[in-house]
Amino acid sequence: MSSQNIVIIGGSAAGPKAAARTKRLDETARVTLLQKAPELSMATCGYPYYIGGDFDDRNQLIATPTGVVRNEAFFAAAKGVDAKVNTEVKSIDREKKTVFYVNTQTHEESSISYDKLVICTGATPRRPPIPGIDLEGVQELSEMGDADKLRELRDSGKVKNVVIVGGGLIGIEVCEALAESGMNVTVVEMLPQLLSFLDWELAKLIEKHVKSKGITVHTENGIAHFLGENDRLTGVKLQDGSIIPCELAVVSIGVVPNVSLAREAGLEIGDFGGITVNEYMRTSDPAIYAAGDCVEIQNRITGKKTYAPYGDLANLEARVVADNMVLGDNSIFPGTVNSGICKVFDMSAGSTGFSEKNAKAEGYEVITATNASLDKPGFMGAKLLVSKMVADAKTGRILGFQCVGPGEVNRQVAEAAMAVMNGNTVYEIGVADLPYAPPFSLAIDHFITTAHILENKIAGRMTGISNVEVKERLDAGAEIFLLDVRSPVEFEEMRLNAGETLIPLGTIRTSLDKLPNNKDSEIITFCKISMRGYEAQRVLEANGWTNVKVIEGGIMAWPFKVEFKA
Amino acid sequence: MSSQNIVIIGGSAAGPKAAARTKRLDETARVTLLQKAPELSMATCGYPYYIGGDFDDRNQLIATPTGVVRNEAFFAAAKGVDAKVNTEVKSIDREKKTVFYVNTQTHEESSISYDKLVICTGATPRRPPIPGIDLEGVQELSEMGDADKLRELRDSGKVKNVVIVGGGLIGIEVCEALAESGMNVTVVEMLPQLLSFLDWELAKLIEKHVKSKGITVHTENGIAHFLGENDRLTGVKLQDGSIIPCELAVVSIGVVPNVSLAREAGLEIGDFGGITVNEYMRTSDPAIYAAGDCVEIQNRITGKKTYAPYGDLANLEARVVADNMVLGDNSIFPGTVNSGICKVFDMSAGSTGFSEKNAKAEGYEVITATNASLDKPGFMGAKLLVSKMVADAKTGRILGFQCVGPGEVNRQVAEAAMAVMNGNTVYEIGVADLPYAPPFSLAIDHFITTAHILENKIAGRMTGISNVEVKERLDAGAEIFLLDVRSPVEFEEMRLNAGETLIPLGTIRTSLDKLPNNKDSEIITFCKISMRGYEAQRVLEANGWTNVKVIEGGIMAWPFKVEFKA
Repeated sequence: MSSQNIVIIGGSAAGPKAAARTKRLDETARVTLLQKAPELSMATCGYPYYIGGDFDDRNQLIATPTGVVRNEAFFAAAKGVDAKVNTEVKSIDREKKTVFYVNTQTHEESSISYDKLVICTGATPRRPPIPGIDLEGVQELSEMGDADKLRELRDSGKVKNVVIVGGGLIGIEVCEALAESGMNVTVVEMLPQLLSFLDWELAKLIEKHVKSKGITVHTENGIAHFLGENDRLTGVKLQDGSIIPCELAVVSIGVVPNVSLAREAGLEIGDFGGITVNEYMRTSDPAIYAAGDCVEIQNRITGKKTYAPYGDLANLEARVVADNMVLGDNSIFPGTVNSGICKVFDMSAGSTGFSEKNAKAEGYEVITATNASLDKPGFMGAKLLVSKMVADAKTGRILGFQCVGPGEVNRQVAEAAMAVMNGNTVYEIGVADLPYAPPFSLAIDHFITTAHILENKIAGRMTGISNVEVKERLDAGAEIFLLDVRSPVEFEEMRLNAGETLIPLGTIRTSLDKLPNNKDSEIITFCKISMRGYEAQRVLEANGWTNVKVIEGGIMAWPFKVEFKA
Repeated sequence: MSSQNIVIIGGSAAGPKAAARTKRLDETARVTLLQKAPELSMATCGYPYYIGGDFDDRNQLIATPTGVVRNEAFFAAAKGVDAKVNTEVKSIDREKKTVFYVNTQTHEESSISYDKLVICTGATPRRPPIPGIDLEGVQELSEMGDADKLRELRDSGKVKNVVIVGGGLIGIEVCEALAESGMNVTVVEMLPQLLSFLDWELAKLIEKHVKSKGITVHTENGIAHFLGENDRLTGVKLQDGSIIPCELAVVSIGVVPNVSLAREAGLEIGDFGGITVNEYMRTSDPAIYAAGDCVEIQNRITGKKTYAPYGDLANLEARVVADNMVLGDNSIFPGTVNSGICKVFDMSAGSTGFSEKNAKAEGYEVITATNASLDKPGFMGAKLLVSKMVADAKTGRILGFQCVGPGEVNRQVAEAAMAVMNGNTVYEIGVADLPYAPPFSLAIDHFITTAHILENKIAGRMTGISNVEVKERLDAGAEIFLLDVRSPVEFEEMRLNAGETLIPLGTIRTSLDKLPNNKDSEIITFCKISMRGYEAQRVLEANGWTNVKVIEGGIMAWPFKVEFKA
């Protein structure tokens, strides 16, 4: 294992991690890092917060926790790694185990031989072939220079109107950053919803919140043309024909793995366009490993390949690569459950595993539960969480969990990620021993309650109906006895106003005569979060009604209009 | 299953949960709840926050999330439960399946027969036989009336000095509540540390923080006498002879299960003094279940019985009881991993599984790692976390995790609780896919990094030494080459001042001549958090030194005095 020549292509996340870990495992290894960009070890995920002015010192994006900039000198001195920036790799000769590269400043060409090579070439923003995309003012957010440029535009105060193309994670983060600096922001998304890792009805709650911040959101719409004058952007024309004037458009519609080097070297490329690696993160060439946004990895739930360009996974993959290069293939990277989280103004949105639509697309027969409840006791300044749990209908195994709201989403999604990775069932989570104290959670943690609801559904005790289905059926004029079991005060303050009857839960046992005589009539109950709705269902069923359902998540999870007190 | 008479003794946490769930499972059941106190469904864990003035409306402690007070009328109307407050159960006749009770206001005696009985009699504060404990001014915090009294004393402004007897969870919460209302607070604890669920060196970081808030802390000391005049408390005399004047003493040295009724009825009582129940939460009498602070449950790691009086577990146990009473014994309560969390002024402290000392006491051969690092990237206003992971030395299975600091302890301990329950190893956590974005966590989550450190220790790559051991050996005059590898600027600002040599990591490879010639000399490295300390260890070992160790957690986890820049 000693004195290997290790060459690493790429110096953002995976590359530097692989380099530093390799040296820690084997100080005698000669590690060379070839980086095309001028910077090393950039905190790419931090760009939106730099752009938005959360901090002003750009160097914080490339510095250690104690403030030392991670430049070539740092890598040489502190890590024992020979890092070369502004260095673009042109080709890999696998026969000769040699990498050819050029300095992008001096144009000097060189080569270096390797015993082991690591490809960490990352991903490139998806660039749609839309007329006008080359106009000045159409901007991506990929390199640090892009972040610099957007920050400069923000500081200049010159941009009044910006269109964000793509309502995914990065689009939403940039939307927030630019809106908070005073620009008029419009988000244009091709799909029917923002944040596609969420199911529609949870994404709609996020969309409501985004709109409440003055953002215009167009879903199911795309850019037909970027319009310009004198090579400068002046607006965008949408696919529906409408025109939005703007001086800046930020295109963030996802990324594609950067695999041209690997492909040209003859390495195997997978169905998602990423480099194929095995469980040891080794490519089809035994001397070459790969990690980060350029590879395909395994989905831990299905065992199938997937593309998961997350910064945290890049680091973990790179660590496995270093282990295997130095110690022989002994360390396995098991893949992803697609855990992610995102700040959206005063709310957060997170997800792990599959959404309902993705689970169904994978062929699972699923059952879901929606839970709207507080994150801690009301007297502790609690905030709302709306979650949806997706489980295998037969086994109760948790396949996914989404959570949005102003409350503490972070802990909820982290717990769920652990559950999904461990293959836990709703029954196991229903008796989980999680840390509790009033400043931190409810006595029965929101995640556990969600499992309880799903357990009740699986057992047939609670018959839920999604708010989307209720709305569709109401819109279609279905005959439903809609039963609001909240208090008159709550009803006064806010209501669905969809022809509902108000019978507070506390009076339901003595108000059965107000319900439809026909015991087979469909009755749909609800309350604020639908705990009382469920209790009402149980009482009605005990009294002979046979077709009672509960709107899951109640009014708090209702993604459509509600009527407020005038 | 229909029309059972269900009688439940106790109306705090477990009782009301069992009652409500029973009705939801079987509306035909006649459920009677007998509650000694005047209140029902009290959020006991919220008392310290009420006392401290986090909120002013006492009713919030006994209200639903929508503000309805859960009194007898509420239970009757909304839950279909016949709840009787001020009702003390005097005896249980198991032969006749009858419970005898008395109204504490009217002294009227009654009885009720049951098909199934649930005992949720909770726990009582431990009351040491110390002279003067009956003086006015010596207060417990158990009942809602105690909370009322302490809140009243706080509001009155009449108490200047208070002594908290016991530095456990409740003691510390009350300490914060009263200190923030302007009282001079002294905490007296018999053990060498506060918060005994932590290992000493982490508890010491909490103690430092508590002291920084102006609290006086006496450890390894107890109350010898409560001193008084005219039956009123005037001070306490400690076991070391010192006297602390005070007008109020709050005794919170733990609780004992309240089992006199169960014992008199001949039910089996366990070694910890709690009611013995099986996995279905059934007592030694098939018609009687029990839940909450009065029972012993299983430790999920060891499989042995333990006593775990936590509010969240009481609720989960009660839910299992209801299931089993209505549906037959089919729902299992697996027990506890002792997850807990606590706010301590601007810090939090949490734990799950075993501390190092408790794991050793259980007979485990353990290996531990301490990790001091930020909770998210520095540019996002990150805060410090100091954690300690305890694993089985042979298998790497995580047996426990503790975390303290101003950072986001909540998510960390929740993740760890999930890991401990699932029997995860450090290797599994080392490749976990947890949600990441800069506002929420580091790219490699703190919990994962802690697993990485422990993995490195198990593999023999990192040789750690605890700060406690270093301090002991320094105090004993051991010859150690203490090597600080931070930058000169950091050294200038804060240092151990224990005879250390400063060689910044970036110069270590060119400064080997400054190290002891004898390659077997003991060298102990450290930095701010000990990442660089570890890197230095790797470099020194690669250069032939054979006895290099790293102070775990670095200066940030150092629980002793450090020297700051003048």
